[in-house]
Amino acid sequence: MRLSRYLLKTLRETPADADTANHQLMLRAGMVHQVAAGVYGYLPLAWRALQKIERIVREEMDAAGAQEVRLPALHPIELWQESGRAAGMGDILFKVKDRRGHELVLGPTHEEVITDIVRHSVRSYRDLPLILYQIQTKFRDEPRPRSGLLRGREFTMKDAYSFDAGSEGLDRSYQAMAQAYRNIFDRCGLQTIVVEADSGAIGGKDSQEFMVTAAAGEDELLHCPSCGYAANVEKAAFKKLTPGTTAERPPREKVATPGCATIRDVAALLGVPPERTIKAVLYTDETGGLVFVCIRGDLEVNEVKVKNAFKAKDLRPATDAEIRAVGAVPGYASPIGIRREGVKLAVDDSIVSSVDYVTGANQEGYHYRHVFWDRDFMDKDGKPWLGSAYYQDFAKAQPGHGCPKCGLPLEGSRGIEVGHIFKLGTVYSESMGARYLDTAGQEQPIVMGCYGIGVTRILASAIEQHHDEKGIVWPPAIAPFRVYLVGLNLEQEAIRREADALYDELDKAGVEVLYDDREESAGVKFNDADLIGLPVRLTVSPRNVKQGVVEYKVRTAAKADLVERQRILEKLTPSA
Amino acid sequence: MRLSRYLLKTLRETPADADTANHQLMLRAGMVHQVAAGVYGYLPLAWRALQKIERIVREEMDAAGAQEVRLPALHPIELWQESGRAAGMGDILFKVKDRRGHELVLGPTHEEVITDIVRHSVRSYRDLPLILYQIQTKFRDEPRPRSGLLRGREFTMKDAYSFDAGSEGLDRSYQAMAQAYRNIFDRCGLQTIVVEADSGAIGGKDSQEFMVTAAAGEDELLHCPSCGYAANVEKAAFKKLTPGTTAERPPREKVATPGCATIRDVAALLGVPPERTIKAVLYTDETGGLVFVCIRGDLEVNEVKVKNAFKAKDLRPATDAEIRAVGAVPGYASPIGIRREGVKLAVDDSIVSSVDYVTGANQEGYHYRHVFWDRDFMDKDGKPWLGSAYYQDFAKAQPGHGCPKCGLPLEGSRGIEVGHIFKLGTVYSESMGARYLDTAGQEQPIVMGCYGIGVTRILASAIEQHHDEKGIVWPPAIAPFRVYLVGLNLEQEAIRREADALYDELDKAGVEVLYDDREESAGVKFNDADLIGLPVRLTVSPRNVKQGVVEYKVRTAAKADLVERQRILEKLTPSA
Repeated sequence: MRLSRYLLKTLRETPADADTANHQLMLRAGMVHQVAAGVYGYLPLAWRALQKIERIVREEMDAAGAQEVRLPALHPIELWQESGRAAGMGDILFKVKDRRGHELVLGPTHEEVITDIVRHSVRSYRDLPLILYQIQTKFRDEPRPRSGLLRGREFTMKDAYSFDAGSEGLDRSYQAMAQAYRNIFDRCGLQTIVVEADSGAIGGKDSQEFMVTAAAGEDELLHCPSCGYAANVEKAAFKKLTPGTTAERPPREKVATPGCATIRDVAALLGVPPERTIKAVLYTDETGGLVFVCIRGDLEVNEVKVKNAFKAKDLRPATDAEIRAVGAVPGYASPIGIRREGVKLAVDDSIVSSVDYVTGANQEGYHYRHVFWDRDFMDKDGKPWLGSAYYQDFAKAQPGHGCPKCGLPLEGSRGIEVGHIFKLGTVYSESMGARYLDTAGQEQPIVMGCYGIGVTRILASAIEQHHDEKGIVWPPAIAPFRVYLVGLNLEQEAIRREADALYDELDKAGVEVLYDDREESAGVKFNDADLIGLPVRLTVSPRNVKQGVVEYKVRTAAKADLVERQRILEKLTPSA
Repeated sequence: MRLSRYLLKTLRETPADADTANHQLMLRAGMVHQVAAGVYGYLPLAWRALQKIERIVREEMDAAGAQEVRLPALHPIELWQESGRAAGMGDILFKVKDRRGHELVLGPTHEEVITDIVRHSVRSYRDLPLILYQIQTKFRDEPRPRSGLLRGREFTMKDAYSFDAGSEGLDRSYQAMAQAYRNIFDRCGLQTIVVEADSGAIGGKDSQEFMVTAAAGEDELLHCPSCGYAANVEKAAFKKLTPGTTAERPPREKVATPGCATIRDVAALLGVPPERTIKAVLYTDETGGLVFVCIRGDLEVNEVKVKNAFKAKDLRPATDAEIRAVGAVPGYASPIGIRREGVKLAVDDSIVSSVDYVTGANQEGYHYRHVFWDRDFMDKDGKPWLGSAYYQDFAKAQPGHGCPKCGLPLEGSRGIEVGHIFKLGTVYSESMGARYLDTAGQEQPIVMGCYGIGVTRILASAIEQHHDEKGIVWPPAIAPFRVYLVGLNLEQEAIRREADALYDELDKAGVEVLYDDREESAGVKFNDADLIGLPVRLTVSPRNVKQGVVEYKVRTAAKADLVERQRILEKLTPSA
């Protein structure tokens, strides 16, 4: 392609409103045009790269036995009501009314539509397993579209759905997809880590995310450099070390702790370490109920874990009035002596029965010491909370905490989610009635998985991971072209002939070349070559032509080589 | 692909609500799933065919020098207000409000977005010409989605836009696109005719449509079998023969024509042929003005031509009250003696000044004879209409009328519009400010063209044109697979081994095979083979295996051949 004929205008300056490397570089390299917030047009350079990514995705999905379909963006709202997500997805859903007043959803994902198709075509176990996928446009009305293509309102996704007779089948499909995903990201030149993930609004059980580690990532990750454990902070577990246990159980005692509003103050006053205190963190859920979380004083609450435990749609910090309404006292709260009605009690499993704790006495300026939770957590009527409390992991893992697998310290990093795989189980097949007849002729719900890749996000995160101060450094497999051919002093007829001939030769040999034949200075051309960042830069100049050589520079190399003119093609297309 | 693992369920019965061949056959062959009215999911078989069509389109567009982009579906309403089409497109536009209350349009076409991109990147004549295209999903809230994929609300289009410095450049781009379109339809196996077309809501000047002739077509076409002239009825011209002229001009005379409400009655009563009468056809436009069309009694009015002449958005038949309000009398109307205010007069050029006509006298039961339109068409105040009337072609061409080029009779047919090319000129570049600096440094509006192909409509119309009573007859280049391999009695281990081996051999050689390895009867398999309609059917059966042959049947052939087993691959992949 001749650059003089190509729709590609580079910018010298970084646009002011672009805050991430991918956004800045894609704008500067003339790859995208913003049409609305989070809505982009892909210009020829970006579109070539996206097509290469799509090809890699297709090849790996096909190789894993998946079948490609193409589903529509317009979905009748009734399908979303059937699955229960018309309300559950909230404002993320773009909705549109047609001329007859029917409400349609612009598909943010396609579980409903694909389940509708499968329930119409699958009859028996003989029709299973099936893995169906598509590469298609998704619409999500994000509250804060940002970071260029990293979080848009219209974007391209590869979404796949597996349908199996039984959970062993699902395990096989899930593993096949996990392997395909590793292959895809490897081939796209992305370094990813696979983390345990929360399954969020999609529903279901196991789920893993493929994360491109990059500073611009929205996700907080924890991983263990020793054993390889890795998880999204929303999901991450850690080893909770138990502070010194005691065989004695002294009776509970109320002590004055005037002016001690923080755990640190109380612990210092009473001479106990923070890990021998219990703090209360209080939320109100969407029904108005109080979610009362007890956790060790040195730990933080992971709200996602709380939400999941109580299947809460929404949590917000409880107000003082809401806390007092159940008989607790803000700043000095504990479950001891409060009302049970309207309260859900969550006890983090960092709190163990063999440890002697300090906690709030539900009285301004007072705490209890010698609290053993199994003995002392009683409600207003003296009925123990033990047995009705949710006792499990509600804590947020942090860098430095012990790895849940090997105990060595976890490290923190940031990541961009480029892939996400879920074991959905029978969530959708049960709500939407997608069943099969098993070998015994019994009707069973189909066991489903779903698997997503952000195709446009791969493009953006490849740039986040592969750039330098001069511009993009394309991973070769997804570079829009392989070679940037610079012609210098093309106003000299002989030089233009040489450069044109090299371009034609490479083009005919199937080498993808972007030929900078513009009337621009050497400086502009070299800067643009670095900015656009194709893997190889070739330069034809009067001096080179005289010597019978071409300058050959790999984008990642510090310096250029001179290669004999007749050896260029061979160097670019070595026989296998 | 093994059919036993493929998402493909054929139906024996024709679904009741499908009224066109493409819709019936696509449903019966398990190719599509209807999600909402005019909204379809493409299942694997259809998607394979669509991908082949897309590949052909891409190759031909690239060969014609067009550059591929991908534009979004969500457009800010402001872009559509700038071009003036936010109102002009009416209810066809799907509109959606985002969470901040901003209105967005779901793109039914992309002139606005592409013009916005080009006005940001083109500076001078050096940046031109440009042809940009995309293959993308369009959304149109059609009043009556119907005929399967022929008229949907969500469909795939290839849309291209050309940008030139001057109209000669546009002519070149237009011709390049016209040629690419001929190549595309030829390669897809479609017989098309190119017709002169009305340019409708897109705006602009010259335009041509590529029509697949088929009974299910929505468009009425006229073509001349002698000289090749062809046009959409909306646009078609014809040779208007002039009835006997006269040198004498007798004075106008009012005659009683009691009970003669039709042209035929009047003509019979007065002893003149219908082509020597002038009838009035009256419309009211969207401003409430009366559009008064005079046309020869034997011809019909073409409303599209009337709309275009007056740039009317909407025309409806005028009511009696509206006709009387200007001083005309329904059933006896003519422009003679009526009020001029609020009246637009259209005189079809079938009415010539050398002919003596009969027309209405604006009095119940009376007509005038000896009317010469240039002499006698006067308003209420005696002022001639000549000079202020629109005098041009307003007539509807019909089969049997003379070809406008050679005069021989036109024939009628029906067609499916699969492509449409327009010379837009500067309609959009002027309203949206897309300009370039010419060689003299003067700012000029960019001269544009636009070019559309209905990609999903190609699929549907290929089936309309290529099917028989048994099923689809795929044009080879867009067939989802090349070979349908039937295995009979596969429960016999030896036969299954033979069939599997043939499948593997063809698959490895790159021949696309759909292998019917299901546990079904020979009848079911042969019926499905015909229904799905791949170009070649191969059959492996116990009898064939014993003879060392494979049955080879071309879908269009009446009977099958027996081919030696070892010659099958050679027969399917003859060396070039």
